[in-house]
Amino acid sequence: MSDDNVIYIGNKPVMSYVLAVVTQFNTGLSDEVLIKARGRAISRAVDTAEVVRNKFMRGLDVKDIKIGTEQLVGGEGDKINVSSLEITLKAKA
Amino acid sequence: MSDDNVIYIGNKPVMSYVLAVVTQFNTGLSDEVLIKARGRAISRAVDTAEVVRNKFMRGLDVKDIKIGTEQLVGGEGDKINVSSLEITLKAKA
Repeated sequence: MSDDNVIYIGNKPVMSYVLAVVTQFNTGLSDEVLIKARGRAISRAVDTAEVVRNKFMRGLDVKDIKIGTEQLVGGEGDKINVSSLEITLKAKA
Repeated sequence: MSDDNVIYIGNKPVMSYVLAVVTQFNTGLSDEVLIKARGRAISRAVDTAEVVRNKFMRGLDVKDIKIGTEQLVGGEGDKINVSSLEITLKAKA
């Protein structure tokens, strides 16, 4: 999967990311979109996937969900662990 | 899986839920624990699973992760959709 198919969730409203995912499916070359988030944005990633699936594109499966921990380096060189979530949505065959 | 093996994530600090999960594995009758969260607590559920796996009990697999939408009824009878997340942790055989 190329980087084009990855939507990174940040602090914008959920609908911004819903639009990004729907656009990606409609214009992209892949039948999969990967939604990625870290920290507090994780709940927004789940919101995004659920709104896309329930309101906009019913023909999608949740292909995979992964959780993990990433290590960030803070301003003073200290290391911070932050949780991550990846949701792969795939168009039904 | 009985209700005993379900840890519901709320607004307490992550370590409260980490302790609950570890205790459940150590005293429970099952080799699985289900971590459930809704809305903004979802990111805390991922934190809980990751801290348990990385710091306390390395012999755990993430058996399953599910996302969903639940409908809550608000104070004035209006319906609110809220995202949910379930993480199943299982002791390695």
